[in-house]
Amino acid sequence: VTAKLTDADRAEHLPKLAEAGWTLVDGRDAIRKTFTFGNFVEAWGFMSRVALAAEKLDHHPEWSNVYRTVDITLSTHDAGGLSALDVKLARRIDALAGAAG
Amino acid sequence: VTAKLTDADRAEHLPKLAEAGWTLVDGRDAIRKTFTFGNFVEAWGFMSRVALAAEKLDHHPEWSNVYRTVDITLSTHDAGGLSALDVKLARRIDALAGAAG
Repeated sequence: VTAKLTDADRAEHLPKLAEAGWTLVDGRDAIRKTFTFGNFVEAWGFMSRVALAAEKLDHHPEWSNVYRTVDITLSTHDAGGLSALDVKLARRIDALAGAAG
Repeated sequence: VTAKLTDADRAEHLPKLAEAGWTLVDGRDAIRKTFTFGNFVEAWGFMSRVALAAEKLDHHPEWSNVYRTVDITLSTHDAGGLSALDVKLARRIDALAGAAG
């Protein structure tokens, strides 16, 4: 089972994630970010890279797509909130979005 | 611009879509269906097939994925509601889900 982030972990990681555009979700311990691309094909290309990264980490996003927009929420069900896996996946997602753009 | 379904179109198509599990969305002219697979890889495989079909039709779903579940809403923005494209895409999606299972 993956442990929730400790207070020290949160103090270390959450400000950096906030700087990168990840916001805390109201009412649950999760982070969320919206990515916008030029069109559906670009959005889908990004999602495909994220899907492979998620499967490799064995940690999957909650996400939605409407045409060129991708909305991603990260939280760890087993941990009942944010864990180190969410921090890791958020960083990989940001790197993959950068590679797209 | 794609035209909204006429009353005659709706009488022809909506009952069949309802039988196939597509429900009308509250508060807007759209249809929705949830698909559940064995795991993320199967859900993602389905989404990949739907993405190609959608791009080919130049008509894209509003959809979300949480691990092995895929929730799809169809409506035609240009038409301000359901059009023949939604009927066509819904049928292709059902065929692709069947091929997955």
